Amino acid sequence: MSNDEMDCKTALSRRELLKGAGKISAVGSLALVSGTGLGLLAGCGDTATKTVTASSTDGATLPWPYVKLDAASLKQVQETAHDNWFKGFCAFATFSGIVTQLREKIGEPYTSFPMEVITFGHGGTAGWGGTCGTLVGAGLAAALVAGPKVGEEILNDVIRWYTDTELPIYMPDKPKATITAVSISNSPLCHISVGKWMKKEGVGFLSPQQMERCGRLSSDVASKTVGYLNMEVDKQFTAANKSQVTLNGMPSQNNCTDCHGTNIPAVPTPGGGESLIESS
Amino acid sequence: MSNDEMDCKTALSRRELLKGAGKISAVGSLALVSGTGLGLLAGCGDTATKTVTASSTDGATLPWPYVKLDAASLKQVQETAHDNWFKGFCAFATFSGIVTQLREKIGEPYTSFPMEVITFGHGGTAGWGGTCGTLVGAGLAAALVAGPKVGEEILNDVIRWYTDTELPIYMPDKPKATITAVSISNSPLCHISVGKWMKKEGVGFLSPQQMERCGRLSSDVASKTVGYLNMEVDKQFTAANKSQVTLNGMPSQNNCTDCHGTNIPAVPTPGGGESLIESS
Repeated sequence: MSNDEMDCKTALSRRELLKGAGKISAVGSLALVSGTGLGLLAGCGDTATKTVTASSTDGATLPWPYVKLDAASLKQVQETAHDNWFKGFCAFATFSGIVTQLREKIGEPYTSFPMEVITFGHGGTAGWGGTCGTLVGAGLAAALVAGPKVGEEILNDVIRWYTDTELPIYMPDKPKATITAVSISNSPLCHISVGKWMKKEGVGFLSPQQMERCGRLSSDVASKTVGYLNMEVDKQFTAANKSQVTLNGMPSQNNCTDCHGTNIPAVPTPGGGESLIESS
Repeated sequence: MSNDEMDCKTALSRRELLKGAGKISAVGSLALVSGTGLGLLAGCGDTATKTVTASSTDGATLPWPYVKLDAASLKQVQETAHDNWFKGFCAFATFSGIVTQLREKIGEPYTSFPMEVITFGHGGTAGWGGTCGTLVGAGLAAALVAGPKVGEEILNDVIRWYTDTELPIYMPDKPKATITAVSISNSPLCHISVGKWMKKEGVGFLSPQQMERCGRLSSDVASKTVGYLNMEVDKQFTAANKSQVTLNGMPSQNNCTDCHGTNIPAVPTPGGGESLIESS
């Protein structure tokens, strides 16, 4: 949900105004102004939110510390994600794949973060077939590591990749079933993503094959997310995709005909309420 | 994603076996066995997970402490949720509406929990129109307060209510726009939920009216969730609905014809992989 109408100069001026008024500390103002996830400051060179804060222990303030995960650690992310699918399903799997490494490499505040809190994200949120749990788990991890604004830009690129890519890719050390199919979901929705794959593989839900596929998918999404987090800590991440609302005029996927057929409803021109959004 | 095939006797026997083997502490075994969100222990009278642990400060272990929120506090939940929509949108709004009260009434570990972490849930996850952000925010809060298993049962009932109810209901103290329409979504997806409402109201996305509607929806979902949490702390909550996977055979909504029309694909018989799930 980006708003391209507010340019960097306006956003930065507002932040300086807030700081000058003494209402918000320097760090606080940066966190608040950039923390809405609106992408208002995208491209504004807001390097302060990209700094690794190795010593911060104030859990309530994002981002949290991060260290680049090397190839060996990334392998562990993928293995943990796959294996943990069979303990708590996709959202827990993806999230814990990443956070387990951060607990080992950094410790607090990750160690005290209850990883099972995101378990409900499985099956598109409590099995309702909505947003794939891997993406919710990835979003939570990205927000912790990169803050809500950049974390969402990372998530947006992960979701676009998820919808456009033949998956799964990862081959775990200990697969629990043999699977052959790969599929492109064209959608971030569990119902569509797992539905298309199951049809291709010829299996049902809660079959060993579906479980193994979703386990590997958790590895893939966790791995893709870590790739972006590694770029971000090097100040090398730039969002490749605009927000879906910017592109389509409302929250939406890109596979309109999959559900609407040829009868895609017109989308009213968005906007008009931007002044109601509080950026700080 | 419930598995009705494992009866209480089997589940309890497994838990006793784990405790006897000395592998997991009594509290730990209960948390782990019931923590998968599978609903395996639904109806098993697992009262230990429903106990209010007023003194627990181990953030990594769920559930966290909770106190019943009275009518005045519930009003605050609704007001905060509505007003916070305009700071961070629906997932942050719903979640912070609840957690702000818990920070005031209880303090830690809620005080150190970064509420902005769930901001990405807006617009159906980063604006992709998937699971409504209010439901993701509610799920996160319910998991913190009631643990992943009961929290998901609560979320499941909230989602069912969300899909079947004319919304929004709440009238905030400080509305930011006048709206007239109410709608039934029949779906937990943002794209469908906000789409149907906007069509009825005759407005577009990011209009003042859409923002106000989603702000009030955040109040409604937060309020409904707190109602269940209050029941849970009194040991009075019982899940009203089975899981969608149990009902439909795969992660899914109930408005099949909205997307599939008359051509609803057959759902293969689910199951076969249950033995791969690790309950501890």
